[in-house]
Amino acid sequence: MTGRGRFITLEGSEGVGKTSNLDALIETLRAAGIEVLKTREPGGTPLAEEIRGLLLANRSEAVDPIAELLLVFAARAQHLATVIEPALATGTWVVSDRFTDATYAYQGGGRGGDERRIAVLEQMVQGELQPDLTLYLDLDPAIAAKRMTGRERDRFEREDRVFFERVRAAYLARAAAFSRIRVIDASPSLDAVQRSVRDCVSRFLRECGAIE
Amino acid sequence: MTGRGRFITLEGSEGVGKTSNLDALIETLRAAGIEVLKTREPGGTPLAEEIRGLLLANRSEAVDPIAELLLVFAARAQHLATVIEPALATGTWVVSDRFTDATYAYQGGGRGGDERRIAVLEQMVQGELQPDLTLYLDLDPAIAAKRMTGRERDRFEREDRVFFERVRAAYLARAAAFSRIRVIDASPSLDAVQRSVRDCVSRFLRECGAIE
Repeated sequence: MTGRGRFITLEGSEGVGKTSNLDALIETLRAAGIEVLKTREPGGTPLAEEIRGLLLANRSEAVDPIAELLLVFAARAQHLATVIEPALATGTWVVSDRFTDATYAYQGGGRGGDERRIAVLEQMVQGELQPDLTLYLDLDPAIAAKRMTGRERDRFEREDRVFFERVRAAYLARAAAFSRIRVIDASPSLDAVQRSVRDCVSRFLRECGAIE
Repeated sequence: MTGRGRFITLEGSEGVGKTSNLDALIETLRAAGIEVLKTREPGGTPLAEEIRGLLLANRSEAVDPIAELLLVFAARAQHLATVIEPALATGTWVVSDRFTDATYAYQGGGRGGDERRIAVLEQMVQGELQPDLTLYLDLDPAIAAKRMTGRERDRFEREDRVFFERVRAAYLARAAAFSRIRVIDASPSLDAVQRSVRDCVSRFLRECGAIE
C-alpha cells in the first residue's frame, strides 16, 4: 500500500458491542497487511482525552448544549491535527471508535441541537475531510439497555430511552444520506455481527484495490 | 436600579495590574449601590474553570489553534448560560475579568488566527450579547514583562515579546472600532491607574443614569 491512508470509523450507541467489533475490524485490516492506527473519540491525544473526561463526568452543574458541542469539536480538532492527519499523510490507515457522525447523532439527534450549527463546526475543524468508510452498528435501544445492565454509566449513558431512540434515528438518517456509512445489524450473536463486520471491511478492501 | 443588569469587562495583558484595578472597578459600582457579580474568563463555573485549567496548563503536546479557540468558546458558552445571563436577567451587574475581546487579542492577534472564525463562534455563543462597557488597561509589553519578573508563568504567559505586541495591537484596534471599549493608560503608578478606572466607571454610571 502506498499513498495516503484510509480513514475508517465505527459508530453505534452504548451496548451494541462496539469494542469487540472494533477488534474484528482492525484484525481484518491487519490480516490484509495494512498498517493500522486504532484511536477513539472524544479523545485520542492527552489533551483530547482530558476533554473527554470533562464531557463524560457526571456533574451537578447542567452542561450547556453549545458548550458540550464546542468541547466535542475542540477534542476533534486536536485529534485531527496531532494524530489522524499525520497518520493518514504517511500512509497509515486510521480506525476511530466514533467520529463526527456521533456528534450528529448525540448532540444533534439526542439533544435536539441544530444540525446547521454542527455543520459549521464540522467545516471549521475538518474542512473536506470525511471518513472513507463508516460502519454503524444498529440496535434497538431496548435491547442495548438490557446488555448494559450492571455497568457504571457516564453522563451520556444515563440519558433515557427517548434520547437513545433519537440517537438511533439520527444515525439511520445519516446512513441513508451518505453511501460511506454501512448499517450493520447488531442484534444477532456477537459472532454473527463480527462476521458481518469482517465481510463489510473485506468488501471495502476489494473496492479500493487493497485485496483481490 | 431595576431591569436588566449591565455587563462590564476588564481587559489587558499579563502584568498590567488587572487584579487590583478589577477591585477598584467593583468598589466604584458597589459604592453606587449596585449589586455586582465578579467573575472571570476563561472560567466562572466549575466546568468552565476545568476548561481554563486545560487551556493554561503547560504541556508537551502542541495545542492546535482551533482546538484552543473552541475550548475558549466552550467555557464562554457555559459561563454565559449558567452565570452571566441569569445574573443580568435578574438585574445584577456582571463584571468579568476578560471576555471575547481577549479572544480576538490572544487567539486572533497573538496567534494570528482568522478573525472571521472567531466572529462565527462569537455569534454562535453570544448571539447579540456584548459588554455594555469594556476597560482596556494598555501597557507596553516591555514594561509589563518587567512587572512579571519572578512570577510562575502559564502557557500564555510564556509566549514571547512579539506575541504580546500583537495582542496589544489587536486590543487597540478593537478599542478604535468599538466605542464601548475605553483605553486606560496602565503605565503610571497603580494609584493613578485606579483613579482613571474609577473616573471611567463613574462617567459610565452617569451616562446610564445610575448616579447623578
